[in-house]
Amino acid sequence: MSQKKKRSLTGLKPTGNLHLGNYLGALRPALELSKSYDCIYFIADLHSLTQTRDAQALASQVLDQVATWLAIGLDTDKHILFRQSDVPSVTELTWYLSCVTGHGLLEKAHAFKDAQAKGQEVNMGTFCYPILMAADILLYDTDVVPVGKDQKQHVEMARDMAGSLNAAYGELLVLPEPLIQEEVMLIPGLDGRKMSKSYNNEVPLFCDEKTLRKKLMSLKTDSTGMEEPKALDGSTVGDLFKLFATKAQYDDLSARLAKGGMGWGHAKEELFVAINDHVKEMRERYVACRKDEALLQRELAKGAEKAQAVASQTIKRVRQAVGLR
Amino acid sequence: MSQKKKRSLTGLKPTGNLHLGNYLGALRPALELSKSYDCIYFIADLHSLTQTRDAQALASQVLDQVATWLAIGLDTDKHILFRQSDVPSVTELTWYLSCVTGHGLLEKAHAFKDAQAKGQEVNMGTFCYPILMAADILLYDTDVVPVGKDQKQHVEMARDMAGSLNAAYGELLVLPEPLIQEEVMLIPGLDGRKMSKSYNNEVPLFCDEKTLRKKLMSLKTDSTGMEEPKALDGSTVGDLFKLFATKAQYDDLSARLAKGGMGWGHAKEELFVAINDHVKEMRERYVACRKDEALLQRELAKGAEKAQAVASQTIKRVRQAVGLR
Repeated sequence: MSQKKKRSLTGLKPTGNLHLGNYLGALRPALELSKSYDCIYFIADLHSLTQTRDAQALASQVLDQVATWLAIGLDTDKHILFRQSDVPSVTELTWYLSCVTGHGLLEKAHAFKDAQAKGQEVNMGTFCYPILMAADILLYDTDVVPVGKDQKQHVEMARDMAGSLNAAYGELLVLPEPLIQEEVMLIPGLDGRKMSKSYNNEVPLFCDEKTLRKKLMSLKTDSTGMEEPKALDGSTVGDLFKLFATKAQYDDLSARLAKGGMGWGHAKEELFVAINDHVKEMRERYVACRKDEALLQRELAKGAEKAQAVASQTIKRVRQAVGLR
Repeated sequence: MSQKKKRSLTGLKPTGNLHLGNYLGALRPALELSKSYDCIYFIADLHSLTQTRDAQALASQVLDQVATWLAIGLDTDKHILFRQSDVPSVTELTWYLSCVTGHGLLEKAHAFKDAQAKGQEVNMGTFCYPILMAADILLYDTDVVPVGKDQKQHVEMARDMAGSLNAAYGELLVLPEPLIQEEVMLIPGLDGRKMSKSYNNEVPLFCDEKTLRKKLMSLKTDSTGMEEPKALDGSTVGDLFKLFATKAQYDDLSARLAKGGMGWGHAKEELFVAINDHVKEMRERYVACRKDEALLQRELAKGAEKAQAVASQTIKRVRQAVGLR
């Protein structure tokens, strides 16, 4: 008999206009896990409410994310993709966890400490979001949570809270383990700094070809003249090209640039081709899925049903243990 | 056309062994409101979780409270009596309110400040309970919340939170008004201090006659001899007797005691009769209801259905406004 796969949980806030950095740094590694784990992916719209007040954008970005997961190849029959707010009992578990979690633990959360250090007023959603995040993890009997090193604290806090509830009421919740993700290679943006919306230097993941070419042509290079030899290594063009080309392709472009007589513009054109080849099919799927709202709603309904089936077991167990119903 | 009655909301934590002080100070005034308001009463079991870890006691005390409301005469056809945890969307509204509520507001809550002043570790349930309380109030479109002067802050906080959500997303929630309850006369316990479980000086509301008499006989009096004249005014016997006897009965007992030749024991016997006459029928109804668990469960199911019908409208309105579903 084959051993049951461990369950992994990944949540991403819905945001507009994903870029290549999001894809290479978050989406693709998360999708990769579906080869080895029983995966649950959720669109963290309840978490978005700590920051956004734009209801229309939020609703639309949720659909963007569904289309994105489908476009990059997530198999929603084998795994679960759902919208967080479709299983509101996560907020109920949040309450049960709150009652066994010290105020002091939350004061140690990075986001709160950072905001406090900056003298910012923090809303209670932001202050409490580590509990909601713990509830996300614990509601689904999650075994592993893929995180970067800097997010390890969330999983540790979830373990603490699960441990406290179990200590008070018996073994109710699975203690999750962090699955530390390798540091992703730095994805450079158009100005050479890390690709990020806050730098306005990003290459969109699903824009049309014309926009993609235009974006890449705006990439900053040095002002070496056309005829002079150029080094691909250490250039932003080279760093990006490396992520989408084979080693042979990279070495070839590198050699031609080193000979002189080839401008950065030509190199950027080849970068465009490499990236476009990589994202073309995904983009087509994305555009087709995003237009088909009935499909997206069907996917959400399917995911909600599957997620609720898991969640309702957990919440029932906890309710009974704490003395409700 | 008759004007629609305003809606009033009252929540009481389930506790064991109610005493005369609870009845006169909380239950009876709350029931009184059902003459003028459309009343919702809820058994605040989710709030209990901030303190209790005893699941069995909690479940049993919930049933005690249902039986109590029925025994004192609540008409659950005209009004709503429900268990808080039967409408878990109150925790969902708690999240939406959290996202528009500053951390600073919660730090001002009396219970948190008191605990902090005493150097106590506060759990997050206790820290966040004013938000859950606001959600209780706002989920049911409550117009008025009967409170003592010292609990006015809760209603003010609920108004603040409703105002913040409305400001961010439009008119979604009804702003509740506090209905300040007259200071209840002090109910003395068996030792003359305020009747309270923490002083162990209480007269149980629904104990059997034998226990009630025994309790009242243990009431502390002065050591004036049998033959000497005694003053009913200012005595604990008198203060309690006043609450259950007519003015004529009180004056009569007072005159007989003042003449001398009557011991405190006789006065206590008359106090017992007065109290017993008052609670007898309620006690009989309580005992009969409490035994009939099927009845209690039917009442809970009926209340849950009626409460959910109101709550689901509110939560739907809020979900749509903030951009979910």
